[in-house]
Amino acid sequence: MAFESLIVLGLVATCCLIAPNDASLVFRARNRSMSAKPFKVLITHPEVPQSGIDLLKEHCELTQVLSLPPSRAELLEKLKGVDAVLWGGHSPLNAEALDAAGPQLKCISTMSAGIDYVDVAEMKRRKIPLGHSPTVLDAAVADLAVGLLIAAGRRFNEARRKIDSDNWESYHLNWLLGQDVRDSVVGFFGFGGIGQAIAKRLSGFDIDQVLYTTRRRIDQETEKELNAKKVDFDELLAKSDFVVIASPLTPATQGIFNATAFNKMKRTAVLVNIARGKIVNQNDLYDALKSNRIFAAGIDVMDPEPLPPTDKLLTLDNVVVLPHIGSATTRTRSDMSTIAAHNVLRGLAGEPMLSPAY
Amino acid sequence: MAFESLIVLGLVATCCLIAPNDASLVFRARNRSMSAKPFKVLITHPEVPQSGIDLLKEHCELTQVLSLPPSRAELLEKLKGVDAVLWGGHSPLNAEALDAAGPQLKCISTMSAGIDYVDVAEMKRRKIPLGHSPTVLDAAVADLAVGLLIAAGRRFNEARRKIDSDNWESYHLNWLLGQDVRDSVVGFFGFGGIGQAIAKRLSGFDIDQVLYTTRRRIDQETEKELNAKKVDFDELLAKSDFVVIASPLTPATQGIFNATAFNKMKRTAVLVNIARGKIVNQNDLYDALKSNRIFAAGIDVMDPEPLPPTDKLLTLDNVVVLPHIGSATTRTRSDMSTIAAHNVLRGLAGEPMLSPAY
Repeated sequence: MAFESLIVLGLVATCCLIAPNDASLVFRARNRSMSAKPFKVLITHPEVPQSGIDLLKEHCELTQVLSLPPSRAELLEKLKGVDAVLWGGHSPLNAEALDAAGPQLKCISTMSAGIDYVDVAEMKRRKIPLGHSPTVLDAAVADLAVGLLIAAGRRFNEARRKIDSDNWESYHLNWLLGQDVRDSVVGFFGFGGIGQAIAKRLSGFDIDQVLYTTRRRIDQETEKELNAKKVDFDELLAKSDFVVIASPLTPATQGIFNATAFNKMKRTAVLVNIARGKIVNQNDLYDALKSNRIFAAGIDVMDPEPLPPTDKLLTLDNVVVLPHIGSATTRTRSDMSTIAAHNVLRGLAGEPMLSPAY
Repeated sequence: MAFESLIVLGLVATCCLIAPNDASLVFRARNRSMSAKPFKVLITHPEVPQSGIDLLKEHCELTQVLSLPPSRAELLEKLKGVDAVLWGGHSPLNAEALDAAGPQLKCISTMSAGIDYVDVAEMKRRKIPLGHSPTVLDAAVADLAVGLLIAAGRRFNEARRKIDSDNWESYHLNWLLGQDVRDSVVGFFGFGGIGQAIAKRLSGFDIDQVLYTTRRRIDQETEKELNAKKVDFDELLAKSDFVVIASPLTPATQGIFNATAFNKMKRTAVLVNIARGKIVNQNDLYDALKSNRIFAAGIDVMDPEPLPPTDKLLTLDNVVVLPHIGSATTRTRSDMSTIAAHNVLRGLAGEPMLSPAY
């Protein structure tokens, strides 16, 4: 009875984004009344940053997948009997994994923003709370997006190839001319935390206007702050000098950037994709870039990943390609681990997660 | 007498940055009173954008160097007897060229910000006004600098090589971790128009502080706006997470970024150079990058230019190299041509140039 009250107390107190003390309170109380750590938690990847592990190990008995790359067999074996999972990496989180864990499984948190490798319907059917770690990666992804926008618009890939192939034609005055950011229209397909963080970063570049296409209009104060206007997809394509894809991958967005879309874009337009590769029809993107139907693209995500080094996209001058490193900074990865651990602790305490995925 | 008054009228009226109408006034008046265009002007490069040529040809008789790359011989030949020169390209502007032109030469304007290919002492000795075209390229260079800062800090070059060499190790969680821009200290060596334009662009990135090292403190309002603080060179090196070189090349700055300087920088620091290659001791930079004494570099300028494709700098993973394309956008090049033409027209009219180099 006293224990139940403490859970409720914890619930009420955990209103701030990161509240280790409140969650700790619950578990310390529990630990005091029991001889061993009450919950078994699996860490599904050997490289999950220490920040999250340190949080969990105060309260839980931890096991960890040690193989690298993490083997599915080891994962399925170690899932057996656990109460919760900190799901690092992108191994499919599906019925097979849930069956391997067993019915005592109470909650899972991924260490990612996107959860397209999770069978969400199956998780919901089994009523298992799922957490993820958005927000903390917004800054890192937004930085990278601005880097890609400039690198693609200013022809970084082609420029480097000119040096490497001994074709530095410094005697030209109109050589490798790129796109200006100032006075440009930047259009966002999807305008959540990451999209808005990108727009905020571009606020110092003297751009003309931000356009965005989403299902719901964002709040008017943010619109005003970012000089942003909601438009439909066709208007976004027609008016934007830079088009930034920052939406989730859903059945509605899959393949929406196809030849039809590219044909509505400006010939000088630059496409940036830091969301998910499958939102773009990559074959059509290749054609649009190869024929200069659009000016350039900068992409951190593609289809498939890893992209084979023989892929025709990599032959193009006017594309900057990165291997999905949007959130790859030490601090971001550490923050993602921390959030995921808090999600797990809260889920185990029967509380709402810090970042519930649904 | 009426003609002289009009010149004075023109002088008084030309107070805004670009004032084609006022300059036109002077020359139209002059043309009306004479049978032929009064001045011979040489354009030293076949690719000078039309904007400047259109301005000049209203009032002057134009000749143009047509060879590409522009031959020195053709340049020297065509200089003979001209009244003014729009100096496109980076051919040395020295006593040889001035002698070739002859004593009637009244003024010259380059189409560049940096004028390290000009023998300024010789020009001054001969009392020939020199114009250049700074300011209009600030935005383009600043965009590129931010692109380089992010590309170097987030390992774009190494990342692309991982894809090309089939080493996309997506199973790692701590793969290709880069530097965060948020909460960083950005230090500027040189903090004129371009440096300030870069700092302005970074104002949306939640950076912690801007530091700068210059001879003279900038005005306090701009300091406040940009959250910028003047420090000495050693403090700049020690405290900055990103060090941006944005100074002119002078005897005092040549080679100042050498091993001694790199050894004072943070091991996580990223160096960006969009100014002039010779400000950096490139051999020392190679060593600092190779030994991971600093984290990475992004450079648009180097020594020599063109850089031979066999240069050891190009073997490194942690450097992003561009072939001096800082001002390479259509609009910027067109603006540079316009400013240079106005400089020439004003110089011919005996007026102060729009952008005098001294």
